[in-house]
Amino acid sequence: MVESMAVMLDALPRLESAIGAVRPVDPSWLHRAEVKLAHLTKPPNSLGRLESLAARLCAVQETVSPRAAPRRIVVFAADHGVTAEGVSAYPSAVTAQMVGGFLRGGAAINALARTASADVWVVDVGVAGNIDAAGADASFRSRRVRPGTGNIAEGPAMSHSELAAAIGVGFEMADAAAADGVALLACGDMGIGNTTASSAITAALARAPAAEVTGRGTGVDEQAFVRKVDVVTRALRVNRPGRAPLDVLRTVGGLEIAAIVGAYLGAAEHRMAIVGDGFIAGAAALVAAELCPSFLDYWFAGHQSSEPGHAVQLRLLRQEPLLQLDLRLGEGTGAALAMPLFGAAAAVMNDMATFDSAGVSGRREAVERAAAEA
Amino acid sequence: MVESMAVMLDALPRLESAIGAVRPVDPSWLHRAEVKLAHLTKPPNSLGRLESLAARLCAVQETVSPRAAPRRIVVFAADHGVTAEGVSAYPSAVTAQMVGGFLRGGAAINALARTASADVWVVDVGVAGNIDAAGADASFRSRRVRPGTGNIAEGPAMSHSELAAAIGVGFEMADAAAADGVALLACGDMGIGNTTASSAITAALARAPAAEVTGRGTGVDEQAFVRKVDVVTRALRVNRPGRAPLDVLRTVGGLEIAAIVGAYLGAAEHRMAIVGDGFIAGAAALVAAELCPSFLDYWFAGHQSSEPGHAVQLRLLRQEPLLQLDLRLGEGTGAALAMPLFGAAAAVMNDMATFDSAGVSGRREAVERAAAEA
Repeated sequence: MVESMAVMLDALPRLESAIGAVRPVDPSWLHRAEVKLAHLTKPPNSLGRLESLAARLCAVQETVSPRAAPRRIVVFAADHGVTAEGVSAYPSAVTAQMVGGFLRGGAAINALARTASADVWVVDVGVAGNIDAAGADASFRSRRVRPGTGNIAEGPAMSHSELAAAIGVGFEMADAAAADGVALLACGDMGIGNTTASSAITAALARAPAAEVTGRGTGVDEQAFVRKVDVVTRALRVNRPGRAPLDVLRTVGGLEIAAIVGAYLGAAEHRMAIVGDGFIAGAAALVAAELCPSFLDYWFAGHQSSEPGHAVQLRLLRQEPLLQLDLRLGEGTGAALAMPLFGAAAAVMNDMATFDSAGVSGRREAVERAAAEA
Repeated sequence: MVESMAVMLDALPRLESAIGAVRPVDPSWLHRAEVKLAHLTKPPNSLGRLESLAARLCAVQETVSPRAAPRRIVVFAADHGVTAEGVSAYPSAVTAQMVGGFLRGGAAINALARTASADVWVVDVGVAGNIDAAGADASFRSRRVRPGTGNIAEGPAMSHSELAAAIGVGFEMADAAAADGVALLACGDMGIGNTTASSAITAALARAPAAEVTGRGTGVDEQAFVRKVDVVTRALRVNRPGRAPLDVLRTVGGLEIAAIVGAYLGAAEHRMAIVGDGFIAGAAALVAAELCPSFLDYWFAGHQSSEPGHAVQLRLLRQEPLLQLDLRLGEGTGAALAMPLFGAAAAVMNDMATFDSAGVSGRREAVERAAAEA
C-alpha cells in the first residue's frame, strides 16, 4: 500500500505538491470575523450557524468581507462496471443520456444551479456510452480516461495510471475555477452504479460493515439491495484495499470520484470554499481528508442525504450539514441548495451596520455600565 | 371567552369573513404535482422534501407550474410594557432604533432579504419611541395603534378595539401584497420584550408550563431568565386568558403579533404561500391556526429557532422546519433564509425535462418490462 502510494505520487507530482500546499486556515481570521460579528446590529450569536459559516468563509479567504460568488458546480460523469451485478434500478446507458440532459439544461442540477446563480460544468471522465453533445456550450469537457471502470466485484476499478489521470482531470477543473475567480466550488456526480462504489469506499475508510453504509441508491428493491450489500462485501474481499486512501479509490472507487478528489484538493490549494454534496462527493471528501486533513478547513458540509452511508461520512468528516432535506440525487443538487446560505453569510459580513454606526443602544449590561459610569 | 370572541368578530368583520373564506387546499393538486414530479429526469422522490415543498406550493396556487416570486417580508414592530419587569437584555428604546436601522437598510433582515430577492416592508404597529424615518422609502407604513402594550404581568396587553386595529393592519398588508402579485409572503417582528409575550401565548395555547416555552430571547443571563419565567407565569395568572385564541392574543400578546395574525389569515385568504419565521411569528401562527385550521395549508415552517418554545409550536403546527440553523433573531431572517428553497422547488416543477422529452431510459423494471413485451 505504501508502495502504490509512492508510485502514484511519482505519477502525479501535482497531487503530492497539493497535499503539501494545502495549509490549515489561520484561526486568527476566525477570531477577527467573530469580533466583527459581535459589533453588528443583532444580539450576540443570534444568527446561529450562519455566523459560524460566515466566520469559516472569512478564514478561508483571509478577509472579514468574504465573497460567495461567482459559484460553480462541476459535474463529473463516469460509468461503473459493477452495474453488471444488477446493483442499480437504471441501466448504464442512462449515464450518457443524463449527461446529454445536463448539456441541454433540463436536469435537476441545471434547474437548481440557476436558482443558486451557479454555472454548471459537465466533465466526462469515464462515460461508457455515446454522449449527444449537440448544442453543448463551452462548459462541457470531454476527458474520458476509460469507458467506465472495471467491475469492482471481480477486480480493481482502474489502473494506477488511470487513477492518476482521473485525479488530474479534477485538478484541471479546480485550476480553471481558480482562474475564473470562483469563490464557491461544488462537485457533483453522475454515474449509474456509483453509490455501490461509494459504499465500498466508505466501508473501507470508516471500517464499517457493508450493510451499514449501503443504501437504496436510485431506488432498488429489497432483492437488489441485498445483492448490492453482497457486491460491496465482495468488492472489498476481492480487492483487499486496506485503508490507504489511494488504494481504496483505485480498487473500489470510480473515475468521477477520483476526479472529485483532485478537484477538492486543487480547490483547497487555491483557498477556495468547497460546498459538499451528497454520498458520492462525500466518498471523495473522505479520501481527500485522509490524504490531507487540512482539506477539511476548506470543505463545508452542504447537506445530508438520505443514503445511510452519508451520515457515517459526515461523522468522520466532523461536520454538521447545513441542510437535511432527504435528497438522494447527487449531481451537485444538495450543494446547489446550500449555496444561497453562503450568500447570506457573506451578506451579513458585508452589508450589516454596527451598533455604533446605526445609533442603536447596546445590551442592557453595557447600557447600565455606561449609565453608572456617567 | 366566547363572549369576547363575539365582540371581536363584531368589531372586525374582515376577520370573520377571512376565517370563513380560507379553504383547505384541493388535494387533487398535490396529486397532479406528484404525477408531474414522477415524470421528471430523476429517480422517484430523489429530491426528498424539496418535492413535497413543490407539491404543496402547487396546491396553494392550483397549478403544476408554481411561482416563487415576487417575495416580500413584512416586518411588524411594536413595544411591550412587560420590559418594565427586566425581561430583556436590551432597553425598549432599541425597538425604535432598530426600526430606523431597517429603514436605512443595514439590519440583518435587509441583508438577508436582498440575498433572497425579497423586498422588505416595515410597519410600525405600536412602537413606543420616536422612529427616525429620514430617508425611508415607500416601504415604511406608520400604523401605530398605541405606543407599546400594557405590562402583561399586571393586566391585559391591549383592549378589544386595539386588538381589532392591530389585526386590521395585518390584513391591510396582506391585501397590499396580493395587489402586488406577491407569491411568497413572510412576516417578521421587531419588539424588545416580545419573546416574553410569545412564551405566554405558547404556554396558554399549548397548555405547557412557562418554563418549557421560555428561552433566553436576545440573550438574558440566568437571573433575568428566572425572572422571565416568573413574569410569564404571572401574566397568565393575572389575565386568565383560557385557551380562546383571541383572548390569549389580546391579554398576553403583542401588537406586532396581532398584526402578523391578520397578515397570515389575509394571505391565506388570498391563496398566497406563507413562509414561517421564528418564535414570535410562530406564536402568531398558533393563534391563526386555532382560529382557522385551514390556514396551515398555506403556511410553511421556514426554520426552527433555538428558542425552546419554537419546537413546541412546530409540534402543534405539525410541520418539520425546512432549516435548523440555531437562529434566534426574528425580523423575518429565518424566513428569508428559507425562501431560496421555494425558488428551487418551483424551478424543479418549471424547468426540468421529462424522461420522454430527454430521451432518457426509465427505471430497470420499466426497461425490462418493455423488453419482455417486445
